[in-house]
Amino acid sequence: MSRPLLLNAFDMMVPVHQSPGLWRHPEAGVARFDTLEYWTSLARTLEDGGFASLFLADIPGVYDVYGGGTEATARGGVQYPLLDPLVAVPAMAAATERLGFGVTASVTYEAPYLLARTFATLDHFTRGRVAWNVVTSYQDSAARNLGMDRQIPHDERYDRADEYMEVMYKLLEGSFEPGAVPADPATGVFVDPDLAHPVGHEGTWFSVPGHALTHPGPQGTPLLFQAGASKRGQQFAVDHAEAIFFIGNTPQLVRRWTDGVRAGLAERGRAEDAVKTFTMATVVVAETDAEAQARLAGYRRHVDIEGALSLFGGWTGVDLAGADPDAPLEYVATDANQSALAAFTSLSPDRTWTVRDLAEFVAIGGRGPVIAGAPGTVADELERWREEAGVDGFNISAAVRPADLERFTTMVSPELRRRGLLPEPGSVPAGQTLREVLTGAGPRLADDHRGASFRR
Amino acid sequence: MSRPLLLNAFDMMVPVHQSPGLWRHPEAGVARFDTLEYWTSLARTLEDGGFASLFLADIPGVYDVYGGGTEATARGGVQYPLLDPLVAVPAMAAATERLGFGVTASVTYEAPYLLARTFATLDHFTRGRVAWNVVTSYQDSAARNLGMDRQIPHDERYDRADEYMEVMYKLLEGSFEPGAVPADPATGVFVDPDLAHPVGHEGTWFSVPGHALTHPGPQGTPLLFQAGASKRGQQFAVDHAEAIFFIGNTPQLVRRWTDGVRAGLAERGRAEDAVKTFTMATVVVAETDAEAQARLAGYRRHVDIEGALSLFGGWTGVDLAGADPDAPLEYVATDANQSALAAFTSLSPDRTWTVRDLAEFVAIGGRGPVIAGAPGTVADELERWREEAGVDGFNISAAVRPADLERFTTMVSPELRRRGLLPEPGSVPAGQTLREVLTGAGPRLADDHRGASFRR
Repeated sequence: MSRPLLLNAFDMMVPVHQSPGLWRHPEAGVARFDTLEYWTSLARTLEDGGFASLFLADIPGVYDVYGGGTEATARGGVQYPLLDPLVAVPAMAAATERLGFGVTASVTYEAPYLLARTFATLDHFTRGRVAWNVVTSYQDSAARNLGMDRQIPHDERYDRADEYMEVMYKLLEGSFEPGAVPADPATGVFVDPDLAHPVGHEGTWFSVPGHALTHPGPQGTPLLFQAGASKRGQQFAVDHAEAIFFIGNTPQLVRRWTDGVRAGLAERGRAEDAVKTFTMATVVVAETDAEAQARLAGYRRHVDIEGALSLFGGWTGVDLAGADPDAPLEYVATDANQSALAAFTSLSPDRTWTVRDLAEFVAIGGRGPVIAGAPGTVADELERWREEAGVDGFNISAAVRPADLERFTTMVSPELRRRGLLPEPGSVPAGQTLREVLTGAGPRLADDHRGASFRR
Repeated sequence: MSRPLLLNAFDMMVPVHQSPGLWRHPEAGVARFDTLEYWTSLARTLEDGGFASLFLADIPGVYDVYGGGTEATARGGVQYPLLDPLVAVPAMAAATERLGFGVTASVTYEAPYLLARTFATLDHFTRGRVAWNVVTSYQDSAARNLGMDRQIPHDERYDRADEYMEVMYKLLEGSFEPGAVPADPATGVFVDPDLAHPVGHEGTWFSVPGHALTHPGPQGTPLLFQAGASKRGQQFAVDHAEAIFFIGNTPQLVRRWTDGVRAGLAERGRAEDAVKTFTMATVVVAETDAEAQARLAGYRRHVDIEGALSLFGGWTGVDLAGADPDAPLEYVATDANQSALAAFTSLSPDRTWTVRDLAEFVAIGGRGPVIAGAPGTVADELERWREEAGVDGFNISAAVRPADLERFTTMVSPELRRRGLLPEPGSVPAGQTLREVLTGAGPRLADDHRGASFRR
């Protein structure tokens, strides 16, 4: 087989993840997102389609920038209502044998002592198929509802996150040595006290003196995912992550980021391929290129402009409520918002962008590419992106959910298999951990990973 | 059918819940407690046996009183390692159709904004089969690992817990009105902004201004369980609980408590039967009374004395390490510990209690009765207890796990069904919420419940 293409589905337990309005498409089934069956069925589909994992975003707040409120967010179901992804993982694992589950959890709002237990439990119950997407959270609205006046300042959040990771490593790597849980009726020893240790953490932000509540699962620390795009976030990623996710609209933009990551890894003394790199792609597939383009044009008719601007507002802090949808963006740009707008419009600097253009752009594809075409065209584009952007794989996003992911698995996956880019069904043995599937090593953290230094 | 007997299984995601040493019994299977299959299989067993729910205890700490450390706790697997029960619930729900799941979560260590989302998600994913056992937590070791120097003082914990409940009610009852989530493609409205409200909570302990992250499941607030035994705890229970759990070794002791609860309910203007009452029983069943007694005697040979004293230390704060196991307890009693000892020894004041006697007493049955006998004897005893103690049902505890619960379902459940005390298999329609099954009303909180006043 050629170097395999790694695929995660990029999703969220919400009516609208990245495509405001598309839940109204006749083929959409996502109004049932609040049933367990929706997610176990999706998990089975993805496993059959050769996906490595289902990657679930999460934010502990409700977007309230657009119009200074939540009306457009509510009406459009824009990442609201938002279910707790952690509790769905074991049920999805029970419905599958190989698929991994990447779950977002914030180091800002969960106590490390309890979060370490939750991830260890998930690693046991999935037999090593869980990843943690480490985020520091970015919404003032979340901070206010979680007992803070406002967010912790950005760089300080990451300093605190570094210490948080240290606590997690101590709990997941250092508290139970290998062999600490003989559970042997003959000797009567369930946990060997000589191999189970209090972590004794006393730091700037956290004090955790005691023993981890539970022994780690097959992976120890779950596979670590990170998506920080800022300079400090990227530094955090090269220090901790095993897989990184970055969204960009051109392969060149993503390539600048992957090059930066590899340089950062070299600086830190980690191997250049110590981290798997992913970028996002929204795929619209049909039998022919023309049909796919027609399908995409149909999608655009379902876009919810206000919902898209609510999402845009949440991402950028820029409130475009009240702006004429057909006004050119240059007339609504202010000193405060022009850099946020430019991040989008600079991708096609020659055209005149209206507010509506921006919303449609956000609503289909978000900040990443839209690949629309026949299966062969989609596979060509994914291969081209992989080469030009220098990534190991993709977080595949669906505009119409879950239909676009189902279509991917029945139309694109077979084509990728023909090209030797995806494993044949049944060729991946069950029982591998997600770390082994994604990195080719494991099941525990690599010896040169920072977390490994907390082993005894 | 006679007034049905309500049964919950009382368990915990640990090697040893209440019976130190019994994991070494040849019929025990609990060394596999860290696999999901252990729990989904147990759930199916309980459902087949007519249990209303699986009630899962939890403590966010490791017992460290005995010998001033965790050695005996570790060796004996005494509520350690301890998995996260919340994440197992949807998988167990997917394996069953009717069984409820009561999960313990502490109001001391989880942010209400996030815990409300977790329980709402569980209520969606179980279709209304989740209960919340509200605890305030009692271990200094937990407090230290969760960023506090020590516990919040007892009565203050309950004042804070009252406000916590208010925040939960606002999030689960007040933020989304009925009909707030039309999810209607025709109108394009997923959430009706006029029916979704910020909760605007600003109190002594909590500030939660915003909208609940998700809409509530079929029950709204999950069924509320509580087990506070102190005077302030009992006051909290009559204010909030719909089901209460109390452990006592004699029906008379439990009757004093149920009478107290009913008086408290009357004082608060709630119906005397507004709260279902449960007490714990450990059941050892066999074909004949003699075989059951022989089985029980065999269990005693597996008791882990140090493990039992570690559990006793965790419950009472009394450290009996170093005491001669065969010394009469009166010689190890000090001013500080004699009331804790008396709580146990006063049940049989005429015999001389040794440290070993106490440990064996703790290890089989804990603080509740052990009912050992043929199916008819067990059923008689459960009926007698129900009458004399004035309870609605039992939290059934197993010494040998999961074997004793399996034996209960195959031997005692048929006998209870013959007596019309348990519903016949298949006679309970699927699709009922746990609130409906346990209280006969619902699916939402009763209108005279405090939580209902936070609806709009």
